[in-house]
Amino acid sequence: MQLLEDRIRQQGEIIGNDIVKVDMFLNHQIDVDLLCEIGKEFKRLFAGEEINKILTIEASGIGIACIAAQYFSVPVVFAKKGIHRNVGNDIYTGEVFSFTKNQNTQIGISKKYINANDKILIIDDFLANGAAVKGLIGICKQAGASVNGIGICIEKGFQPGGKELRSMGYHVESLAIIKSIDDGKIIFG
Amino acid sequence: MQLLEDRIRQQGEIIGNDIVKVDMFLNHQIDVDLLCEIGKEFKRLFAGEEINKILTIEASGIGIACIAAQYFSVPVVFAKKGIHRNVGNDIYTGEVFSFTKNQNTQIGISKKYINANDKILIIDDFLANGAAVKGLIGICKQAGASVNGIGICIEKGFQPGGKELRSMGYHVESLAIIKSIDDGKIIFG
Repeated sequence: MQLLEDRIRQQGEIIGNDIVKVDMFLNHQIDVDLLCEIGKEFKRLFAGEEINKILTIEASGIGIACIAAQYFSVPVVFAKKGIHRNVGNDIYTGEVFSFTKNQNTQIGISKKYINANDKILIIDDFLANGAAVKGLIGICKQAGASVNGIGICIEKGFQPGGKELRSMGYHVESLAIIKSIDDGKIIFG
Repeated sequence: MQLLEDRIRQQGEIIGNDIVKVDMFLNHQIDVDLLCEIGKEFKRLFAGEEINKILTIEASGIGIACIAAQYFSVPVVFAKKGIHRNVGNDIYTGEVFSFTKNQNTQIGISKKYINANDKILIIDDFLANGAAVKGLIGICKQAGASVNGIGICIEKGFQPGGKELRSMGYHVESLAIIKSIDDGKIIFG
């Protein structure tokens, strides 16, 4: 998606050879106009898939998922991190290793909000090692729900998550794939 | 807002005399059509205020803020919880006591995304004791930004946050105010 690649080039902050911060428009400050274009593009890319629910994980995924959901006319469910007293015990759980925070995080979704009839589109901001997406897939499996699509804003193509998920047969669409970061320059591929 | 009160009556889960869970449509599963109506209502209620940015706090506030932002044509900035390696040190911080989790949480907003020219609308899902909103106001003060509105989906009128914020002169609009919960029945007021 040219619009997103352009924004990453213009406003992404490169740290070393493997981190691009997009705090300016995607996951701290949020450009909602850009999210609308992202949502429309996900709708176009997954037009052939039956989708009745969008699944994401707090926090950065929620805005993207909610805006996208308008184009699919489906509800959003977001996995919560940590143990929340108000969620109750009747939840599907999974564990996600965060490379950013260097720690495992427990995620959970109430059994009320995902079931065997669901045709799920998973949406997230980044895909690198795929830990978050795999955690969500694990929850879908527990619920017997089908994962009919995985929509990612920015995939780090030099990390294995995307390749692994595609080889497992999932329909993964990443709007911008970063092939490499060399000398402060982002190469898309 | 009748639509929201009706949904709380129909789908809210009452726990004791002071907790109403709205996980079904607002803060775990999200009914995006409802969020659109909420966003339009905030726009109507704050039509007289100059707003150039919507501020919220992760996680439940993000979806509400992003959908509302479409009607204001402004970006969203969300305060992050905990210390995030990728946020950097150049941040305004505040402390929020969560009664749900019974613990203090450190929140932060990068200094890049809030400044003295900003006319802020704070949006959140719940207002009870006002801890989260006061934490965000504290950050706005550090940045010299004006808080021109506070938009809340559900206010617990029997807890002091709303009264305190209004007596401090803030323009607070709550779409549903729960006056009391008696014998499993919600009284709006």
